[in-house]
Amino acid sequence: MGSFTLRDPSSIGVAVLGAGRMGQTHVRNLGAIPNAHVVVVADPVAEVAERGRELARAVRASTDPVEAILDPEVEAVVIVTPTSTHATLIETALRAGKAVWSEKPIAQDMAETARIVDLWRASGVPVQLGFMRRFDPGYERAKQLIDSGELGRIEQFRALSRDTFPPPLEFLLTCGGSFLDMSSHDLDLARFLVGEVEEVHAWASVLFDERFAKADDWDTSVIMLKFRNGALGVVETSRHSEWGYDIRTEVAGAVGKVVVDGAQKTPATVLRKFGWEGDLYESFPDRFEVAYRRELEVFFDNLGAGRPVSPGPDDALETLRLALACTMSWREGRPVRLEEVTA
Amino acid sequence: MGSFTLRDPSSIGVAVLGAGRMGQTHVRNLGAIPNAHVVVVADPVAEVAERGRELARAVRASTDPVEAILDPEVEAVVIVTPTSTHATLIETALRAGKAVWSEKPIAQDMAETARIVDLWRASGVPVQLGFMRRFDPGYERAKQLIDSGELGRIEQFRALSRDTFPPPLEFLLTCGGSFLDMSSHDLDLARFLVGEVEEVHAWASVLFDERFAKADDWDTSVIMLKFRNGALGVVETSRHSEWGYDIRTEVAGAVGKVVVDGAQKTPATVLRKFGWEGDLYESFPDRFEVAYRRELEVFFDNLGAGRPVSPGPDDALETLRLALACTMSWREGRPVRLEEVTA
Amino acid sequence: MGSFTLRDPSSIGVAVLGAGRMGQTHVRNLGAIPNAHVVVVADPVAEVAERGRELARAVRASTDPVEAILDPEVEAVVIVTPTSTHATLIETALRAGKAVWSEKPIAQDMAETARIVDLWRASGVPVQLGFMRRFDPGYERAKQLIDSGELGRIEQFRALSRDTFPPPLEFLLTCGGSFLDMSSHDLDLARFLVGEVEEVHAWASVLFDERFAKADDWDTSVIMLKFRNGALGVVETSRHSEWGYDIRTEVAGAVGKVVVDGAQKTPATVLRKFGWEGDLYESFPDRFEVAYRRELEVFFDNLGAGRPVSPGPDDALETLRLALACTMSWREGRPVRLEEVTA
Amino acid sequence: MGSFTLRDPSSIGVAVLGAGRMGQTHVRNLGAIPNAHVVVVADPVAEVAERGRELARAVRASTDPVEAILDPEVEAVVIVTPTSTHATLIETALRAGKAVWSEKPIAQDMAETARIVDLWRASGVPVQLGFMRRFDPGYERAKQLIDSGELGRIEQFRALSRDTFPPPLEFLLTCGGSFLDMSSHDLDLARFLVGEVEEVHAWASVLFDERFAKADDWDTSVIMLKFRNGALGVVETSRHSEWGYDIRTEVAGAVGKVVVDGAQKTPATVLRKFGWEGDLYESFPDRFEVAYRRELEVFFDNLGAGRPVSPGPDDALETLRLALACTMSWREGRPVRLEEVTA
Repeated sequence: MGSFTLRDPSSIGVAVLGAGRMGQTHVRNLGAIPNAHVVVVADPVAEVAERGRELARAVRASTDPVEAILDPEVEAVVIVTPTSTHATLIETALRAGKAVWSEKPIAQDMAETARIVDLWRASGVPVQLGFMRRFDPGYERAKQLIDSGELGRIEQFRALSRDTFPPPLEFLLTCGGSFLDMSSHDLDLARFLVGEVEEVHAWASVLFDERFAKADDWDTSVIMLKFRNGALGVVETSRHSEWGYDIRTEVAGAVGKVVVDGAQKTPATVLRKFGWEGDLYESFPDRFEVAYRRELEVFFDNLGAGRPVSPGPDDALETLRLALACTMSWREGRPVRLEEVTA
Repeated sequence: MGSFTLRDPSSIGVAVLGAGRMGQTHVRNLGAIPNAHVVVVADPVAEVAERGRELARAVRASTDPVEAILDPEVEAVVIVTPTSTHATLIETALRAGKAVWSEKPIAQDMAETARIVDLWRASGVPVQLGFMRRFDPGYERAKQLIDSGELGRIEQFRALSRDTFPPPLEFLLTCGGSFLDMSSHDLDLARFLVGEVEEVHAWASVLFDERFAKADDWDTSVIMLKFRNGALGVVETSRHSEWGYDIRTEVAGAVGKVVVDGAQKTPATVLRKFGWEGDLYESFPDRFEVAYRRELEVFFDNLGAGRPVSPGPDDALETLRLALACTMSWREGRPVRLEEVTA
Repeated sequence: MGSFTLRDPSSIGVAVLGAGRMGQTHVRNLGAIPNAHVVVVADPVAEVAERGRELARAVRASTDPVEAILDPEVEAVVIVTPTSTHATLIETALRAGKAVWSEKPIAQDMAETARIVDLWRASGVPVQLGFMRRFDPGYERAKQLIDSGELGRIEQFRALSRDTFPPPLEFLLTCGGSFLDMSSHDLDLARFLVGEVEEVHAWASVLFDERFAKADDWDTSVIMLKFRNGALGVVETSRHSEWGYDIRTEVAGAVGKVVVDGAQKTPATVLRKFGWEGDLYESFPDRFEVAYRRELEVFFDNLGAGRPVSPGPDDALETLRLALACTMSWREGRPVRLEEVTA
Repeated sequence: MGSFTLRDPSSIGVAVLGAGRMGQTHVRNLGAIPNAHVVVVADPVAEVAERGRELARAVRASTDPVEAILDPEVEAVVIVTPTSTHATLIETALRAGKAVWSEKPIAQDMAETARIVDLWRASGVPVQLGFMRRFDPGYERAKQLIDSGELGRIEQFRALSRDTFPPPLEFLLTCGGSFLDMSSHDLDLARFLVGEVEEVHAWASVLFDERFAKADDWDTSVIMLKFRNGALGVVETSRHSEWGYDIRTEVAGAVGKVVVDGAQKTPATVLRKFGWEGDLYESFPDRFEVAYRRELEVFFDNLGAGRPVSPGPDDALETLRLALACTMSWREGRPVRLEEVTA
């Protein structure tokens, strides 16, 4: 196990892997981070890589992510590639001693994820996963309130997520099912805000989009959670939402409760014909715009200061275990205890 | 000056004068007040009086309000007749030693109002005027917060009132102008919540309804207020509101502020197409439904317990002075000090 | 089977059975209902009955509810007695041909409830049960929106109820368990707003009050619901709430969603030290004040007009079945289908 | 008059003048703007300039703003220096043919401001002033709604601004008075949202901080506005706010109204002891964080695309005229028409 050091904490060379839509968002956000500068942008499509390089005002573009990782000026890697490549790229970076910020998940199965966790533990290299909701000011405030003890012992967790539009069929066929692909955001919040889960029971249905049935998936689901600390919880998920992105989370304790609501997009309210109207966020890019900026900002801030980064590969492993337990519960029609899901 | 006593404080005989729409509302509200029972309902139109009697399950109907006041079983009078009759009926009740609850105002001129104030002071008979907003739970809470000192020294008062629909022309010709008829609700709140006013400046315009110009009135106005305690204030008024009854009041102190908002009518919110909608109150009967119940409830509660009642004729006089000062300011195009308006 | 008729629909004689706290609330509310007048108030405690009589300005007080029901001037009975007496008193009224408004439930077991349903069906006498939330303006608006089709096909139901204070132990020992006593309000809303349920799974825990364990009851629970129309739902319940009465319900359809929220008690908001505060309802009497008035108002309005009344004994039966299915699920640790619960 | 062209619209060289707190904010925001790169950062204090250069990853630091403007790689200048230097630096940039983004105001007097307006008109060089509220998503939505005609003819404008903390005395002595320094934000919104103003009347008081009296200034004020289109308005201002930054604006039209409210800072709400609490913004940097980013983003976006930029020097002139009219009204104790204020 080695210890990780930076040449100059105030100026960290970065490789961005993947320059699609989210990659471009991360590149723009990196532009405002004082101690990070993009050295190289890699994308298998040369023009996409070049466009990313221009946006990043980086020195080099590359079609080879491994070359980018190994670039001697690079000390940190930002991974925004398809899920199936995450584990390999994280492994390459760990072996090269480069710090990693990666989109979640590491992988869709326990064995591969656990392998990366072991490598990470042995390497001493900082790795942070993109559970961006943890960096939303609303959830950060919720976390502070809970950890401060102000709400008392936690008794109930309740989460709802509705994505605006269902994904295309080709995505459904590879995303690992909606518990992994979508409910996992709320399952991660459950762990982040309340603690580890002991048992789940999940029901799911195809209610509005038959493509989900073709993909052996579902569009609507509900999960009951029993936490190790005794709290009870529920996670509801839907794959469409005509009214916009709809994320609501409540954590109730013995003496207080925190609600993180879907919130209005802008502070403008309109009054018309015996009613008033506010707008809503359209999807995750606008709802979590600040969180996408902060997750990278906090990563480089902690990296530069030599502080640990979080959430790490262990969080990815436990959240994956939870999502797979839900999937097993749904497939087998029975409550599932978390220890049944192993690597 | 006499002292006022009731035969049986747990069962007070009431005469209701005026059985139009608001009279019927008061009659229904009286039905739920334990220590008040309606003895007689009077209205110049015999069928209206009879319908009121049925609704009130009262013993008698009458077309003569004076007869109703003098009824030996009557110990309290509820006056819901046209404004022009208020002063005379209050006077009759005072001389007969009957407690009075009356719709505001006492009269539209200072001299007549001051005369009733003098009679009332000499009589020792309880009189309460229908400034119903003072009994709205929102304004009651605002008053408590201010009086408790929790907000610190008061610095700013800001009020907005928009009526849903403008009144008919015949009403406009006799209502005394919009400062008296409508802004006076906010001017009374200004006095209730902040204290007496020293100087006003008022601007008014006819912006959407030419009938107001015909009545030598206006449909839109704004008033600046200087309070004796140094606070500054503003009162905005409009005679129409397509989106519903729109009442908003804010009082800011050195350390805190209270906002009484237009509020949603029901707790149901609808989410639709990237937006969310709540409903709004349509007009004063639904927005101030609770206040209309409470103003009578509190009156009979205090009456039964031998406690003073409020707001009284003195409040009616001072609020009238304020509304007349605004009218004078608007007519003469200059700021007006309150002491310029005398009986 | 007979047909029910009233002597004078504009003046219906009423017996109120039970003059405790809720009985007094109903008596006051009856005072403002134009076509109802209380003839007799019955309570086993003579002074309580007499106090109720005074409050109702009724002719008679009685310690015998059967005598009150049979009073020839009485055409409708309002039952506010302990749960264990509901079935017998409803039966007596039905046999005497008197219309019934009764607090819920009819009884705590299927057999007794089904017996009353049969009697009611045979009698032709109007019976309405006190599921008061159905008369809250928020839930009424939700119902309208759903029934109008504006929200599209319903996909998700989500309800949370937290009572402010847990009940005393003696109550817990006889209340039939929290699914019957408390969750049943949300289960009734589920049926009212979405439709009949096919299967439930319930988890419950004692998290903060060991008295519940002594009563073989629980203080915190979560229920998953599968509706016959395919929708999925969740009902969360807690027996305490330091922050006040906390009732939140959401119904999501294919194109819109309605949220009935815990709502602020008054429209006054306070701004203080980088934050703003609104108040919350303390318990059901203030949160559902309007609903308690409207459920009686609507009952007498429909009764007077010869229209059917609702919710009736059949609703009480189905909501009971649902609550008992939850109890069975919790006791047996497995999902339960509704048809397993029979009389 | 020349026409303005850029060498490479996708990569505009920028000089940032002034690297204090706001300068650093702008530098960070520039980092995320794809077509702007900072060439030089100038500040009279060498270390501040150097720190700015590092933050901007710029090539050069300078203590001479004129040198920075004239740098051949520089095509656009971002001016974040003290107010007294704005006019001179804008003039230098205009004469050098460099595009200008400058903090407001141009100057505190009409003559100097009008002189720059003339120079700008003659130059054909794009100049945008930092009225950042126009770029807040709430005000942008308000503007769209008004301009679309959806609200109907505008009748009322109402604005409130409360700064969290009063400024230091040395600042008060040079800021030109609170109407210029603070109310001007709302006066600019009045022009932006409703149109030009015809007449004002302003009252002001020293209510909580005697330092304002020493500076011949005031801490609390209220302004009445008559717009040329007939609308009436009011602007309230306070120089302190214990509860946080408090900005509320309403524009009411004949058929609809838009409210831009002070808004919660985060979407987390806390429920505690019969109440609920949300947080509030602490000051303009957090409330208008997005606006500060967008005003530069939009400037460079329009600049790169060859579209006009706005608000320009003419807006600065008219908003200054309005603020000076308020000051004159307050000093002379009378309503003032806008045409009385000339260069």
